[in-house]
Amino acid sequence: MKTLIAVSALIASGLISFCAQATDIPKDKAMDIVRNGEQASIMGAPGNFVGNARIDPLFAARAPSAVSAGAVTFQPGARSVWHTHPKGQMLVVTAGTGWVQQAGGEKVVIKPGDVIWTPPGVKHWHGATATTGMTHIAIQEVVDGKNVEWMEPVSEAQYEASR
Amino acid sequence: MKTLIAVSALIASGLISFCAQATDIPKDKAMDIVRNGEQASIMGAPGNFVGNARIDPLFAARAPSAVSAGAVTFQPGARSVWHTHPKGQMLVVTAGTGWVQQAGGEKVVIKPGDVIWTPPGVKHWHGATATTGMTHIAIQEVVDGKNVEWMEPVSEAQYEASR
Repeated sequence: MKTLIAVSALIASGLISFCAQATDIPKDKAMDIVRNGEQASIMGAPGNFVGNARIDPLFAARAPSAVSAGAVTFQPGARSVWHTHPKGQMLVVTAGTGWVQQAGGEKVVIKPGDVIWTPPGVKHWHGATATTGMTHIAIQEVVDGKNVEWMEPVSEAQYEASR
Repeated sequence: MKTLIAVSALIASGLISFCAQATDIPKDKAMDIVRNGEQASIMGAPGNFVGNARIDPLFAARAPSAVSAGAVTFQPGARSVWHTHPKGQMLVVTAGTGWVQQAGGEKVVIKPGDVIWTPPGVKHWHGATATTGMTHIAIQEVVDGKNVEWMEPVSEAQYEASR
């Protein structure tokens, strides 16, 4: 009975994980699998996106790692507002056709398999084209609890500008 | 003429990039797009993988970011050797069905959309099942120039063990 209580206390304290596999591997040394379907989709907040942008979370940062990632699906016409990332960002396009632009630069078409690096602090936006949806994986690092600084919306004139 | 030489010198020094867009945005502040098809596939080294494992590079770490990523496609029966990552690793399965296992734990089936976290220093392997191919994206951080420590092969007995 004492043993049972002791084991229960260890489970409650999180020192032993029975989630992934029934072993005595301590939680901080256990591989962890989040299954497809376990993370709810999130609609992009209206202050951060224009139009319909759905975020499918992949993973939050797990210490000591600072990396987080998610897949974002933009319906035609949807795009982020202007923004920056403190440690930059990598986008990997997985479907559709989209646009990306940095402040002072031209609007550029992006397609599946393209990988886009935005350096730290560089003001930019990304999204679908006016007529096609687009999905990308976004990978970035957290600095002081933040991985993005949201700014003003992309104007219709900016969004619709010819290349 | 002097101006031309000066500009040429700046281009040669990499301080001005004309690759992504014809603007005067300095290279370290310019978004950079690597197009689908520009990065050659790499066959996984025989010392690091058993069987046919193809690595499609996504991106190397770009300072100040320490994150790198690639997609790995394992033919049936192919798998990594046992290994660890200094700052852990996230896998996102994108196709097929595979297996993953940590030392002291059970072999676990992984499928598309599953996200697998391996903590820093945890000895593990991943690969296809004996009968099915599997592709995952692997995301990890570089520490002191290394993002992986390769170890001994997974034995046939370990690989074929029932769950």
